[in-house]
Amino acid sequence: MTTRLFGFAGGDAGRWQVLSMNTLAGEPLASVRALDVLEGDTCQTQARRWVLRGITSNERYVMREEKENLVAKQQGLGRPQSMCAAMIPLRKSVDWWALTQDERRKIFEDQSRHIAIGMNYLPAIARRLHHCRDLGPDEPFDFITWFEFAEADTAAFDEMLKALRASPEWQYVDREMDIRLRLAKCE
Amino acid sequence: MTTRLFGFAGGDAGRWQVLSMNTLAGEPLASVRALDVLEGDTCQTQARRWVLRGITSNERYVMREEKENLVAKQQGLGRPQSMCAAMIPLRKSVDWWALTQDERRKIFEDQSRHIAIGMNYLPAIARRLHHCRDLGPDEPFDFITWFEFAEADTAAFDEMLKALRASPEWQYVDREMDIRLRLAKCE
Repeated sequence: MTTRLFGFAGGDAGRWQVLSMNTLAGEPLASVRALDVLEGDTCQTQARRWVLRGITSNERYVMREEKENLVAKQQGLGRPQSMCAAMIPLRKSVDWWALTQDERRKIFEDQSRHIAIGMNYLPAIARRLHHCRDLGPDEPFDFITWFEFAEADTAAFDEMLKALRASPEWQYVDREMDIRLRLAKCE
Repeated sequence: MTTRLFGFAGGDAGRWQVLSMNTLAGEPLASVRALDVLEGDTCQTQARRWVLRGITSNERYVMREEKENLVAKQQGLGRPQSMCAAMIPLRKSVDWWALTQDERRKIFEDQSRHIAIGMNYLPAIARRLHHCRDLGPDEPFDFITWFEFAEADTAAFDEMLKALRASPEWQYVDREMDIRLRLAKCE
């Protein structure tokens, strides 16, 4: 069974070891040593410091031709060489959400090249976008993006984030964390 | 405090008296005599036959010029003359959600004139759209639209629905109920 709903659970132990937690905007999340990605509407929240929820959904900006290019180039999560991951929870401002669809698309792609930038790093950087904003009225973030890549691609990943964060779209980001992870060694 | 989350609670008693429940596509909802619209993540679900949840969100298709026209013409819920209401829970097919943004917009407005049709019935018909699909992985509907109007505008409301349901967009609707309501008399 595949689920659309995921829980990102930070605590003392888990499959992913936390290498760093960097707050780029807004309130930080409490510091944790490890993280698990849980499937479904799980109650395994005991002994966790925090659990953020996100749901995969239909695409909001991608057009057909872009989608075909993405699908042709991208690879899935869980590749054996993907020893590294990053979790980026992000919230956008009230101003962003008050924009209309055409205005948001214009900023997202025409001005910021969000899709085009990501495309440059395929297939090395695999990603899954989770929406949080419409899970409920009080979610702490609007999105959680989960990235996986080989250790050798860490510099490329940093370069991609730098390009995105320098774009006009990021002027609408009012909360952002950057959590770097590595698969925990067998104990 | 304004909330984005609402519960639509059907049961034996409530502020709105159910006049009819019509199933247009897919599984029917259990028959109820009355309905309440509850604000927030409420637990007032005892003695209810069912509670459907929906959350207001950013617009997905409207462009700036359309939005300004809508805002200029539309009126809010709760007008004293709005003795009648309709609740229309609706689900769209897997095919719809697999479309890209440009494809959905094309069907929604270029082909189906969804926004333009609704505009013809402003300000008589007031509406609030609630999204359900991303509240969780197992929601029974994708949207709940709540309409309010004066009794004299019932025929106009029916005409509007007829036009929408005849449009190409409705080929993607695989579950739809049409629940008509009237403000319950004081007891």
